[in-house]
Amino acid sequence: MKSFASDNYAGAHPDILKALIKANEVHTVSYGDDPYTSQAIWHFKSIFGDDIEVFFVYNGTGANVLGLSALTQSFNSILCSECAHINVDESTAPERFTGCKLVTIPAADGKLRPQQVLDKIQRIGDQHHPQAKVISISQSTEFGTVYSTEEVKALSAVAKEKGLYLHMDGSRIANAAVSLDKELAVFTRDAGVDVLSFGGTKNGLMFGEAVIFFKPELATSVKYLRKQAMQLHSKMRFISVQFEALLSQDLWKKNAAHSNAMAKLLEREMKKIPEVKFTQSVDANGLFATLPAYVIPTLQQHFPFYVWNEKTHEVRLMCSWDTTEEDVMGFVGKLRELLNR
Amino acid sequence: MKSFASDNYAGAHPDILKALIKANEVHTVSYGDDPYTSQAIWHFKSIFGDDIEVFFVYNGTGANVLGLSALTQSFNSILCSECAHINVDESTAPERFTGCKLVTIPAADGKLRPQQVLDKIQRIGDQHHPQAKVISISQSTEFGTVYSTEEVKALSAVAKEKGLYLHMDGSRIANAAVSLDKELAVFTRDAGVDVLSFGGTKNGLMFGEAVIFFKPELATSVKYLRKQAMQLHSKMRFISVQFEALLSQDLWKKNAAHSNAMAKLLEREMKKIPEVKFTQSVDANGLFATLPAYVIPTLQQHFPFYVWNEKTHEVRLMCSWDTTEEDVMGFVGKLRELLNR
Amino acid sequence: MKSFASDNYAGAHPDILKALIKANEVHTVSYGDDPYTSQAIWHFKSIFGDDIEVFFVYNGTGANVLGLSALTQSFNSILCSECAHINVDESTAPERFTGCKLVTIPAADGKLRPQQVLDKIQRIGDQHHPQAKVISISQSTEFGTVYSTEEVKALSAVAKEKGLYLHMDGSRIANAAVSLDKELAVFTRDAGVDVLSFGGTKNGLMFGEAVIFFKPELATSVKYLRKQAMQLHSKMRFISVQFEALLSQDLWKKNAAHSNAMAKLLEREMKKIPEVKFTQSVDANGLFATLPAYVIPTLQQHFPFYVWNEKTHEVRLMCSWDTTEEDVMGFVGKLRELLNR
Amino acid sequence: MKSFASDNYAGAHPDILKALIKANEVHTVSYGDDPYTSQAIWHFKSIFGDDIEVFFVYNGTGANVLGLSALTQSFNSILCSECAHINVDESTAPERFTGCKLVTIPAADGKLRPQQVLDKIQRIGDQHHPQAKVISISQSTEFGTVYSTEEVKALSAVAKEKGLYLHMDGSRIANAAVSLDKELAVFTRDAGVDVLSFGGTKNGLMFGEAVIFFKPELATSVKYLRKQAMQLHSKMRFISVQFEALLSQDLWKKNAAHSNAMAKLLEREMKKIPEVKFTQSVDANGLFATLPAYVIPTLQQHFPFYVWNEKTHEVRLMCSWDTTEEDVMGFVGKLRELLNR
Repeated sequence: MKSFASDNYAGAHPDILKALIKANEVHTVSYGDDPYTSQAIWHFKSIFGDDIEVFFVYNGTGANVLGLSALTQSFNSILCSECAHINVDESTAPERFTGCKLVTIPAADGKLRPQQVLDKIQRIGDQHHPQAKVISISQSTEFGTVYSTEEVKALSAVAKEKGLYLHMDGSRIANAAVSLDKELAVFTRDAGVDVLSFGGTKNGLMFGEAVIFFKPELATSVKYLRKQAMQLHSKMRFISVQFEALLSQDLWKKNAAHSNAMAKLLEREMKKIPEVKFTQSVDANGLFATLPAYVIPTLQQHFPFYVWNEKTHEVRLMCSWDTTEEDVMGFVGKLRELLNR
Repeated sequence: MKSFASDNYAGAHPDILKALIKANEVHTVSYGDDPYTSQAIWHFKSIFGDDIEVFFVYNGTGANVLGLSALTQSFNSILCSECAHINVDESTAPERFTGCKLVTIPAADGKLRPQQVLDKIQRIGDQHHPQAKVISISQSTEFGTVYSTEEVKALSAVAKEKGLYLHMDGSRIANAAVSLDKELAVFTRDAGVDVLSFGGTKNGLMFGEAVIFFKPELATSVKYLRKQAMQLHSKMRFISVQFEALLSQDLWKKNAAHSNAMAKLLEREMKKIPEVKFTQSVDANGLFATLPAYVIPTLQQHFPFYVWNEKTHEVRLMCSWDTTEEDVMGFVGKLRELLNR
Repeated sequence: MKSFASDNYAGAHPDILKALIKANEVHTVSYGDDPYTSQAIWHFKSIFGDDIEVFFVYNGTGANVLGLSALTQSFNSILCSECAHINVDESTAPERFTGCKLVTIPAADGKLRPQQVLDKIQRIGDQHHPQAKVISISQSTEFGTVYSTEEVKALSAVAKEKGLYLHMDGSRIANAAVSLDKELAVFTRDAGVDVLSFGGTKNGLMFGEAVIFFKPELATSVKYLRKQAMQLHSKMRFISVQFEALLSQDLWKKNAAHSNAMAKLLEREMKKIPEVKFTQSVDANGLFATLPAYVIPTLQQHFPFYVWNEKTHEVRLMCSWDTTEEDVMGFVGKLRELLNR
Repeated sequence: MKSFASDNYAGAHPDILKALIKANEVHTVSYGDDPYTSQAIWHFKSIFGDDIEVFFVYNGTGANVLGLSALTQSFNSILCSECAHINVDESTAPERFTGCKLVTIPAADGKLRPQQVLDKIQRIGDQHHPQAKVISISQSTEFGTVYSTEEVKALSAVAKEKGLYLHMDGSRIANAAVSLDKELAVFTRDAGVDVLSFGGTKNGLMFGEAVIFFKPELATSVKYLRKQAMQLHSKMRFISVQFEALLSQDLWKKNAAHSNAMAKLLEREMKKIPEVKFTQSVDANGLFATLPAYVIPTLQQHFPFYVWNEKTHEVRLMCSWDTTEEDVMGFVGKLRELLNR
């Protein structure tokens, strides 16, 4: 039985497994001084340019916290949406590890707007007040929406004007790229992002994320911070080789294109059902919609998913690289059945 | 070419890989609510008793820091040997995450003695002074030696008498068990250890360690601390299933027995060479010996290893689950050749 | 020239100075083991009951952070108003020292409402989410308003129901007591407050605040935390004796009654001027009102005060123990003059 | 009755009290934007040069931690003596606030030697190992000894060669200056010290210390760090004016000269008693000596002091600005009486 609960419920893509098996054949240097790691970094450079710094880490929280800790001092604040993963789903790891305050901004569609951000950049130079230093956005967002390149640029312009950095939580960056139909660099580096958490796990890896610094001068201390953040893998090749496999044959794009397509299919089919009301634009691989309350428990038994808002009966449905058309049609069929449609 | 640099240079054991491949076949719940995790925990309980709490994490630093953070408040101190991994090889992760001071004790053979520990438990109740709360030992030690059950019990008695906890960094616990020829519980739980970092990566896993609490009341907050410490894997089954494979067929013991045996073979052969002086007892899978300085660089080119002490030409040789007799004899042959013996 | 900028612009009350001079005559024990400290604690016990713990600290931020750190673990969150001093005027000291997230609630009049707090207590038991543990309120609030005893009790009921603690930032607690015309214990301890920052500096001390724990079991580690928080004064008598002087002759009440009365007088006189619009109820010693923009700069030159909102020309006027009727009438006269009234 | 327990047992010097009384006469700006603070900083500049930054804080731990936090990142280590105040008497405030490890060096006379420090600067560039960044020394030391200017310069040379900073805990800097008979700048700034904790409390202040940065570029974030460290006094004038009084009429020197002289007198008189063995050179205002065990308890009842080493019966005797010749002769008389001499 397949679930629509999370893209973390999927396993690793078969090509990732093959890469792991191949990398396992030898005895090699640990902590990243191995050819797999060089190769994977080379692939990132061919995507984003040579003058970047890449650090592999274990998970998304680790990626975000490491990136943010490189950009901040302990008396800074980080501006993010109320629904940001760093705000609601990473315990207090950002606060604990950076010392910073997270200043939150309401974002009905998961996206920050420039004026909202400007309004929160207050009392700069005032020793009593947390000093804003980073704007952090998620791409795609926690609500399944995607910032346009222009929207990223507009936030980057605010950051530059005010002396802040722009951080992107790209745990689902591949889904955003496919949605935008843009090269990865276009809406990240070229749009003014300073540091990017490049997601792997949700897009078909077994484990592993990458933190990419587009300004090498921001990364001079990161190797120490990564170790301190407990994010340095001894047998590093096993993260690196997964990224090599993900990047070398456009697997990242294929996986994301597939999960996005499944989300689109699911949206199309659900839109035919009058009782379903979509609450967010379906830009990537996540869907948000309200359902009649009475169908939810039974539907969840057949296809697990999360209720996002208990009061409004809004649910979240996530498609992943392993979602099939049969899964989608099975879900819709069951929903129709429960609704007597 | 094989190295004697680190047991982290070895890949994953084939049985581990098989387990990963099998676990990959399905779509399953994330963050540990999956059958693989239940199964792996069941195996730990069959080894250590039912009333334990088990938490899987990514790496050794994460395991140690999580365990220590559960035992301490920020104004505490942790007593350990000067050569402890937590003191010299984990950046300042322990200090940063726990707030505590590490109070170090000289340990020529890597082992703490009860009287040394007693001497460092000072000024209890004095608000000005870090309050000693944990004794942390490594088993096997960073110098390849192994505490006897009695030695662990003696330290545990000090801990109990003084109201401290006993923490064991068991990144090479399997090698210690084989060396002692004892059940795992005998020299850990039964000997008074409160929290154990149970090593996986150095004994043939691709990634993953376990933190085991022998007193469940010490673990009530650990799920939150693990998340905050960025050590919670979303696709948890991929750590759990490795531990299941490691524990279910005594693979942990086979791997450790093999690496220990290779170390013994290497010791025996090296002892035949008069220029070699062993500096530590070879109890587990690591060897420490001085070599004539002039042979070291060339030997390292053929079989990478670490020079432990540049001044005394002491080197460290680590055997791992994938070290072969040929590797050992090849190393010794090359050493003899360089020495003209 | 007198200012209405802050109650921190006032010096120490003459009786406080006398107490300091007297305490200076002898050579005495440091760090609180002196008779002045015992005496001051005795006075607090006579106000709040015998079973309390009292810790003297240097300043308000230190008092709040120490109290909050005793109530929380690093993965907790603290619920407070958006305008809370701990949120906007203490740098990121609360986050840095406790590790916790501050979850903010809009509060137009500076006061939290029970339902707002209930709505923010979410996902208890969920390892991914900061775990709410403290409700922190300011009494009087940063907007010069005062919680009624019933309002405090209602928040305390929420705290108790949900297993949270109630923390009160009482940097202006004396002004609140006078405003409510209630004994100090009535709207603090008896109303369910767990920990109170008892303000001294803003009410006529030279330096010094007190943190009062109404449940001694919450205070067992506080002496260590105070030292670690750099809040332990070596020559402790010089804080204690000020509190003795403040408490023994009801000086706390006289000072607060005076500053509240001056605020009332200022309110009465300003209300006679049509251009002045009050934006908050004047419950204690602070006033918030909008003024015509053009009078503000000149008025500030004669009587310094803060513009609270640049856009709406809202200003904050603080009265203190040393504000005189002449100051008030001088201010109002100048304002009238500038308005041609 | 006078004690020899601590220079913290003394009150404030009468001139300090006079300054406080005078500063209390007015209503003035808070947080340091007042004329007293400007004046006090001006005095520091006239001593140390114009291009310095001065920050007033509450206490010695605050001064040390603030200075160290400005010099370090969280993955650094700080080299200090085993007996350093930051290591044994400041709880774990340095670790908690900086994240750094304190790497300790045995120092029989309280002083670090260059070669010892060099030996501890290890594995620079190695991500696994705490990165040494600061050498911290105490002047005068915790054992009452004083570094010569040449000794400070030798440590500074090591710091410069290795890219570290030199921090001086000068909680008793005045005593050192008098002992060396040197201008304050000579053995601090001119000798290569980067950051100095300039002690006030132990030399006759009621409360207050100063942190002096000799390289302004190191101090750019310190105003934020001071606030975050809970060390920013609202009524700042009351610290500043004490320093003005201390510095303007050489009161710092008079007080230190007196306490040093009393220590010398005490040394001279005690050396006449054969049972007394001095264990440290009496360079400043502290004396360390062994006494026959049986006299200690009774002697302490008459003149409180600390036993430094319970096993060897070594005691510490501190003289302060308020110690009199009668105190000294009374102590020695009582000691003679107890010894029947």
